[in-house]
Amino acid sequence: MSYFITFEGPEGSGKTTVIEQIRALLAKTHEVVKTREPGGIPISEKIREVILTKEHDMDGRTEALLFAASRRQHLVERVVPALESGKIVLCDRFIDSSLAYQGIARGIGFDDIMAVNKFAIEHHMPDLTIYLKLDPETGLQRIRDNARENNRLDDETMDFHKKVVLGYNELSELYPDRIKIVDAAQSVEDVVRDTLNIINTYIQSRGEE
Amino acid sequence: MSYFITFEGPEGSGKTTVIEQIRALLAKTHEVVKTREPGGIPISEKIREVILTKEHDMDGRTEALLFAASRRQHLVERVVPALESGKIVLCDRFIDSSLAYQGIARGIGFDDIMAVNKFAIEHHMPDLTIYLKLDPETGLQRIRDNARENNRLDDETMDFHKKVVLGYNELSELYPDRIKIVDAAQSVEDVVRDTLNIINTYIQSRGEE
Repeated sequence: MSYFITFEGPEGSGKTTVIEQIRALLAKTHEVVKTREPGGIPISEKIREVILTKEHDMDGRTEALLFAASRRQHLVERVVPALESGKIVLCDRFIDSSLAYQGIARGIGFDDIMAVNKFAIEHHMPDLTIYLKLDPETGLQRIRDNARENNRLDDETMDFHKKVVLGYNELSELYPDRIKIVDAAQSVEDVVRDTLNIINTYIQSRGEE
Repeated sequence: MSYFITFEGPEGSGKTTVIEQIRALLAKTHEVVKTREPGGIPISEKIREVILTKEHDMDGRTEALLFAASRRQHLVERVVPALESGKIVLCDRFIDSSLAYQGIARGIGFDDIMAVNKFAIEHHMPDLTIYLKLDPETGLQRIRDNARENNRLDDETMDFHKKVVLGYNELSELYPDRIKIVDAAQSVEDVVRDTLNIINTYIQSRGEE
């Protein structure tokens, strides 16, 4: 059986590290594909270049439509074929990022962002979503410590990051069956252990060990 | 008062010529802005480059989201400021092109394309739309005669062009108050005369001569 598992959380929540460790652990017993948008899909990469340009002032709705377009092409070219061949797909950010960032934090509105993303993904909602929950101060401090490359989204204010976390918290209350919370303030080992437990419990509930 | 007037029709219906002549005639008595997407808006131009690339096979929904994104940015940067300063805006193609091409001819569905475009344009529906109606055979013959530069959309089959015209016909029946039909098989002079009459009648009905 194939499973579509997404990972969500604010900047600095440790998604990249956690997903790679989960991939390695799951790969011992399953066929696993790890991906993230734009994921090397040429059309999605080109769209991402437009989004990340600092040259021009982009309207929030334009940005949301571009994220949805990039998501669509990556879904069609990368995610769906992997699911159809029976693999587990681990995806770093998906629809909940748009709902939390554009819908709630930027104030475009949950329903509007959901409508555009439903157009983009149709029935391909994630089976399971791991939400790496972290207070925004800790996340931003981690970004500063890592001296990560700056991009347009990282220029946003502390206030925006707080709204993103509030957005994710709202989403986890709206979709408690799909979105499972992991305390990302723990050590990486503990975060990976909790995440793997949730995934294994889910897979077992779907009838596979 | 400001008016947002759009021009629609299949390939070869003569929109470019007609809009320029209408612009010149209206400019004698009104402040007029003539535009088309992407209209020199840098973000929209970049999006259009992605759409028109022949390199990769683009999903229909990805394309529809990109058209909507380009539309949004052009609307915000070019159309809305002109309307707010009291001008008449003449726009070559707008929401009805997406409804006819993506929604009906490509078969993505009218309601879905409308949802995405409503997200993009919000309440900025055109006040008046001139539909230059022409049978697809005549339109395609005109394109061949003009030896116009080939692009991805022009590669579509005759069947697709027929569907586009059927789509426009459906739209003109759905929105008879907004979409006015002009017989584009006439001479340019007659098309321009009919178009100008429709626009002047509309402006007078709104209380301005």
